[in-house]
Amino acid sequence: MRSGFGSVSRSSITGIVLIVTLCCFHVFALKSQLLTRHGVLVDSNAKDSVISYKTLYFNQKIDHFGFLEDGTFKQRYLVNDEHWHQKGGPILFYTGNEGDITWFCNNTGFMWDIAEELKAMLVFAEHRYYGESLPFGKDSYSDTKHLNYLSSEQALADFAVLIKELKRTVPGSQLSPVIAIGGSYGGMLSAWMRMKYPNVVVGALAASAPIWQFPDMAPCGDFYKIVTQDFAEGGLNCDVNIRKSWKAVDNVAATDSGLRWLSSEFSLCSPLKKTDVAGFKAWLQETWVNLAMVDYPYEANFLQPLPRWPVQVVCKYLGFDPYSVSDYQMLSAISEAVRVYYNYTGSAPCLNTSSTATGSLGYIGWYYQACTEMVMPMCTDGVQDMFEPQEWNFQAFSDECHALFGVRPRADWAGIFYGGLDIASHSNIVFSNGGLDPWSGGGVTRNISDSMVAIVIPDGAHHLDLRYNNEYDPHSVLSARAQEVEYFKLWIRQAKKQL
Amino acid sequence: MRSGFGSVSRSSITGIVLIVTLCCFHVFALKSQLLTRHGVLVDSNAKDSVISYKTLYFNQKIDHFGFLEDGTFKQRYLVNDEHWHQKGGPILFYTGNEGDITWFCNNTGFMWDIAEELKAMLVFAEHRYYGESLPFGKDSYSDTKHLNYLSSEQALADFAVLIKELKRTVPGSQLSPVIAIGGSYGGMLSAWMRMKYPNVVVGALAASAPIWQFPDMAPCGDFYKIVTQDFAEGGLNCDVNIRKSWKAVDNVAATDSGLRWLSSEFSLCSPLKKTDVAGFKAWLQETWVNLAMVDYPYEANFLQPLPRWPVQVVCKYLGFDPYSVSDYQMLSAISEAVRVYYNYTGSAPCLNTSSTATGSLGYIGWYYQACTEMVMPMCTDGVQDMFEPQEWNFQAFSDECHALFGVRPRADWAGIFYGGLDIASHSNIVFSNGGLDPWSGGGVTRNISDSMVAIVIPDGAHHLDLRYNNEYDPHSVLSARAQEVEYFKLWIRQAKKQL
Repeated sequence: MRSGFGSVSRSSITGIVLIVTLCCFHVFALKSQLLTRHGVLVDSNAKDSVISYKTLYFNQKIDHFGFLEDGTFKQRYLVNDEHWHQKGGPILFYTGNEGDITWFCNNTGFMWDIAEELKAMLVFAEHRYYGESLPFGKDSYSDTKHLNYLSSEQALADFAVLIKELKRTVPGSQLSPVIAIGGSYGGMLSAWMRMKYPNVVVGALAASAPIWQFPDMAPCGDFYKIVTQDFAEGGLNCDVNIRKSWKAVDNVAATDSGLRWLSSEFSLCSPLKKTDVAGFKAWLQETWVNLAMVDYPYEANFLQPLPRWPVQVVCKYLGFDPYSVSDYQMLSAISEAVRVYYNYTGSAPCLNTSSTATGSLGYIGWYYQACTEMVMPMCTDGVQDMFEPQEWNFQAFSDECHALFGVRPRADWAGIFYGGLDIASHSNIVFSNGGLDPWSGGGVTRNISDSMVAIVIPDGAHHLDLRYNNEYDPHSVLSARAQEVEYFKLWIRQAKKQL
Repeated sequence: MRSGFGSVSRSSITGIVLIVTLCCFHVFALKSQLLTRHGVLVDSNAKDSVISYKTLYFNQKIDHFGFLEDGTFKQRYLVNDEHWHQKGGPILFYTGNEGDITWFCNNTGFMWDIAEELKAMLVFAEHRYYGESLPFGKDSYSDTKHLNYLSSEQALADFAVLIKELKRTVPGSQLSPVIAIGGSYGGMLSAWMRMKYPNVVVGALAASAPIWQFPDMAPCGDFYKIVTQDFAEGGLNCDVNIRKSWKAVDNVAATDSGLRWLSSEFSLCSPLKKTDVAGFKAWLQETWVNLAMVDYPYEANFLQPLPRWPVQVVCKYLGFDPYSVSDYQMLSAISEAVRVYYNYTGSAPCLNTSSTATGSLGYIGWYYQACTEMVMPMCTDGVQDMFEPQEWNFQAFSDECHALFGVRPRADWAGIFYGGLDIASHSNIVFSNGGLDPWSGGGVTRNISDSMVAIVIPDGAHHLDLRYNNEYDPHSVLSARAQEVEYFKLWIRQAKKQL
């Protein structure tokens, strides 16, 4: 399995990562909205079942919206048709997100679980600029010019063209209704796919898709409020102690001996320097966010394995009376808590503060997307959430983006192009959200119409419904999956009527 | 009033036009689908009413779909709000097509006629690369690189961004439902606007909009069949004689004396040479097509004024027994017939075979659009139509486009992006078509659903319904306009309910 940006030249990545990790306040803002996404997809629960698929490549236009650049690139897609009923069985089409498609394929057990029942073909299409689907090969990330074709609009066009090509070339598929499925950013893409290409897909399941995490659509503080709620419910005093820990870090890190103590207590791979303290706190913050996102009811194998309900496990270390401990005692406990995420098996020799999640995701690509059209405001106030207060500052964010990539984000574009809150005229989309998932703050959690439907899974974390069935699954996710399948069947029946 | 491509450098236009008029068979194919469009909009029936509007400019992004090119250009738009009810009165938004927006503004009397009844603001937005809305000023047409942002997708994005900006900045307009209105290519844009931006416009009137004049959506021969029907119904033997005239041209033009006779008989501004004969026949063909498109029931002021029901007037010259005349007699009659179109007032000193319609349209811009995404197959067989047989040859067309602009058309793209025949999931679009209009062959002439409605005006030519009311209007167009207004009112009520 390759890194999402495996072919990017080492020097340019290093350059960008260096800038990002210089960790001024605004870069922190950038990181907070970008890096937190990466926990999203690090859940690998491929259990014992062996899945198999064909790996195929399609010559895709580099630019669908202009004719000057007429080149093509090889878009990777994975196909399994062992259960497909060649006379009209549906195609379940995963709209790949910001990473290696094999990773999503392995982590979307729901599709594998239902393929037989639906007599469905499974297709997992890789998003351009990630995994192997690099428009300019190793130069794809070399500069702003080569990055210019990395956008959700181009990715949706790739999916539409690919589906049309499959229908043109795969015998029997002409009669196959196509359903778009995706999670997280991939879920946004599946919803948008139905909105923008209703001629290509008959419906969409958008799992944990924060299509409203954009300016003026959802409060910027909701994301971190939900993280905080998860920890508040994870155990007595858990959120309160994390809220107090930031000051403790500042106090301890104010002296050289304190820095040495922190480095040792957290078993950091690189000793902390004064200039690393903001980055250290950002790493802690991302860790709490990732834990909230992947707070699943059973052991799951991420980058590292995690126990059942990991937030509860973490909170066991943070249940003490916040007013009875010293800063050092506080941070010792935090260190224990953090190890639940990074060292559950006890095999990590040291903790690396420059990484919080899997390498199968394309960090730099997502940075670029966030710096162009995926503008997702986030903020904290330290009162309704357990983090240090940080306002959303678009100008500072824009300046960081300009420094990183030479581009400026367009705050309003996604809302105009994808409809913002005003999506009631569309049809056949199921938005599923987990109540534990911080991204549900920007998701669609109320029915919009009979065919624009919200399913909330109260005890679900980030797109739990897309995972394989598991004996520990709560009733709510089983019910969600059953409803989703019923909607799929309804859309398929509707489509057949129209033939 | 400026030419649609007034600012294009003279040398580059001349170069392109020269290539086009070299008139090999395939260029003829290109011309036949391009130039025929230009009669579309040459109807100026501004009667005695004086219309007034503010001319405004909006800084529009040159590229909505990429972030490398971050420049802006001034998009022109015209506004009249004298009848607008500031508390929720609708906005009727003309989605400008391939020409100077003042021309469309002056030729869309329907909007002016109904503004008071609907208490509506009128907005006419110019299409990028036409009129004054040139992304790169005088360099906009200088080469393929500068033309790269000329597309329907970019134009729709312009309209969406402009409407959002109006709603943000014009006091009271936040509550104003916006209805897209357009004719011909502008009608395609208004339909697509509702399909792609239902969050921005509550409905659309697509008048004479051939959204199905694309590969595999409508028979390529329908366009010229309808032209032929118009002439067949215009008078006895009319189509038969035109069908026979092509051979007569070939026969007469085979000798030098014949060429001299033709030049004199048709009062051509430049004497015909042997190499001009194909171009001469193309000019005749375009003339018949233009006449069919603007076969209105009253005198109308186009590039030149035309009589009531001009096809009938033309056919008066072509009613003779086709087997009783010599080639010379045949062509004398054709010459008289052609003068109805080019010299109704008798003031033209000579006829110019390099022009068939108004200079307010952007020929070169439309050539480019036809050579990229607006691929509209046309063909003739000489049996079901009155023209010389000519197959649709995509490869030859593509080669011509490559020679002209360095780009190759993408035959399938418009169908994938805009839905092709599969548009039933959309809502609130009225497609109106005239039974006399050759473009109705590629139009939507049957209801698709309760809210995707077709209105056919049997005795209407090209978007007659968009013109001012006239005492000679047939009942069918009055009824069409009344229905259209009822749909507008319905959409407005629906929109207000959702507020």
